[in-house]
Amino acid sequence: MIENPSPKRTELSELGEFGLIRHLTSDVKITNSSTIKGIGDDASVLDNGELLTLVSTDLLVEGVHFDLSFTPLKHLGYKAAVVNFSDIAAMNGTPKQLFVGLSVSNRFPLEALEELYDGIKLACEKYHVDLAGGDTTSSRSGLFLALTVTGTVEKGKAVYRSTAKENDLICVSGDLGSAYLGLLLLEREKQVFLADPNMQPDLEGNDYILERQLKPEARMDIIEKLGKSAILPTSMIDISDGLASEILHICNDSKLGCRIYEEKIPVDMAAANTAAEFNIQPITAAMNGGEDYELLFTISQSDFEKISTISDISVIGHITDENSGCFLVSNDGVLVEIKAQGFDHMR
Amino acid sequence: MIENPSPKRTELSELGEFGLIRHLTSDVKITNSSTIKGIGDDASVLDNGELLTLVSTDLLVEGVHFDLSFTPLKHLGYKAAVVNFSDIAAMNGTPKQLFVGLSVSNRFPLEALEELYDGIKLACEKYHVDLAGGDTTSSRSGLFLALTVTGTVEKGKAVYRSTAKENDLICVSGDLGSAYLGLLLLEREKQVFLADPNMQPDLEGNDYILERQLKPEARMDIIEKLGKSAILPTSMIDISDGLASEILHICNDSKLGCRIYEEKIPVDMAAANTAAEFNIQPITAAMNGGEDYELLFTISQSDFEKISTISDISVIGHITDENSGCFLVSNDGVLVEIKAQGFDHMR
Repeated sequence: MIENPSPKRTELSELGEFGLIRHLTSDVKITNSSTIKGIGDDASVLDNGELLTLVSTDLLVEGVHFDLSFTPLKHLGYKAAVVNFSDIAAMNGTPKQLFVGLSVSNRFPLEALEELYDGIKLACEKYHVDLAGGDTTSSRSGLFLALTVTGTVEKGKAVYRSTAKENDLICVSGDLGSAYLGLLLLEREKQVFLADPNMQPDLEGNDYILERQLKPEARMDIIEKLGKSAILPTSMIDISDGLASEILHICNDSKLGCRIYEEKIPVDMAAANTAAEFNIQPITAAMNGGEDYELLFTISQSDFEKISTISDISVIGHITDENSGCFLVSNDGVLVEIKAQGFDHMR
Repeated sequence: MIENPSPKRTELSELGEFGLIRHLTSDVKITNSSTIKGIGDDASVLDNGELLTLVSTDLLVEGVHFDLSFTPLKHLGYKAAVVNFSDIAAMNGTPKQLFVGLSVSNRFPLEALEELYDGIKLACEKYHVDLAGGDTTSSRSGLFLALTVTGTVEKGKAVYRSTAKENDLICVSGDLGSAYLGLLLLEREKQVFLADPNMQPDLEGNDYILERQLKPEARMDIIEKLGKSAILPTSMIDISDGLASEILHICNDSKLGCRIYEEKIPVDMAAANTAAEFNIQPITAAMNGGEDYELLFTISQSDFEKISTISDISVIGHITDENSGCFLVSNDGVLVEIKAQGFDHMR
């Protein structure tokens, strides 16, 4: 979906590969001193001095990860970038450079790619990240995005998934499940539209969950607050595939178990109402929905008082030994084994 | 094409996304001390101390960049990795870590991806590069590879495209045009096979040009020799799109012109014979063929004696002022303007 359809349509073949990347990136400015050389050579050159360099890469495939019939291209670009920044946040780092691989079929006019890049550039600007390189090519069908982000973290401050300790507290930022409910809403309205193109989509009053789905943010603010409070999480991951899948990553990689409490899991009121509309439990959306891009992390119990002073963080449970397994304690006290039912694009 | 077809066929859906990447990378070992954390977290962690970090990213799309009907998957993996290493060589750097984004449709069995990864791992092993991360997802059709490589170079030693100087000598490693002629040969035999599947492909005696097409190498040896001879090129690029396109990159980015001499351009004898078979001039394959992955670079005239002692490097011309334009001097002394007619996957 092109956000501002206009009569102008420039065919990609008019520009060629080099022309296209030059056109899309001619207004890119470098702002990070660590970016020695950005777009325009065989490789980009970064100077990260005495810091560790973080690298994360992510693929987004049309029809698998996004549906262009209800995803404005500008939002898609923004989200694709932010999702990568979130991976750097999840290492306790700061994103610095973004590299965009873009493969598109000729059915997209130049104007569509400009919108996509507008979204990418907007995200880069907001997060102070340099768009520093990439590759552009044609595809036989569809739109394919391959993003790589590099970032930095001080030595000794990188936080992994595999380093949680027994008795650590499990914390999560923001609220969970909203992005998935936003997706359900968009998919429902798409079906209504397909059945009767005269029907107007009924998205009123759902701004929050729609924004959570279409325009998520990376929680750099949480990383900053943790740093200011001198809290170094013992383990961390971002929630891209749902809380269940992510807590299992931490527990499995750390060879430990966990107890998390349904009553402690933060769910937005509007999201809970939408969940009721769809006849699903809010906890199901939180556990298995995905795409919230909140941070899930563990801290030492000795940091409990410090963490209590930071807003928008919930303590939702604790880490146990491995033999105790991974369980959700439901509101009526039942132990439910946690299983990954998150987004799995291979199925 | 799967190199060793076997009765075993494991569906990707049996493994799921996490299972797949774990399966394909479980035997990956880290050998570079700069790779602090490889596969298995939100981002990889690199420590490049006082060196500059180089990053290059490259997309390979089935049906655009490769034809699986005559490309063994192991070769495809090897080539995809090497092509990226070549980008780091072209910055005068050393590749250190590779990140593989892989998007595949369910028509590929696990065994096919294992072959692809075998090729990638073989290249990593040969070039002492750590396979350090990536992303795997499904596609609606075809195979899509997005590779990112990081490397290092000493401060002050990175070589760009834009820094050639007037009167510099233009040098190229190895020989040119062979990879393109190998492709022509493979495409011809494919057509013969499609017309009559009982015909055996006639590839005898063409080992060299076929290997140039299917299994190219990055010229790290040249980088090493230049370093040992204390020659720092004034500009450099690798030849992925043909000599014409690449020399224009250097001249345009450096705002200079050039003269290159047909008689000086290195062409392999076997390649020249194949060119004759196809009724094309060897110089055309060299100028516009592409995929040779040789290094094209400029050096100061004062380095001429030093460069003469290094084998497998040809001096093919010199840099002029911008107003003199970019010309090839043909064997009969005619000035032919150089135009980019290289591979352009957007057309």
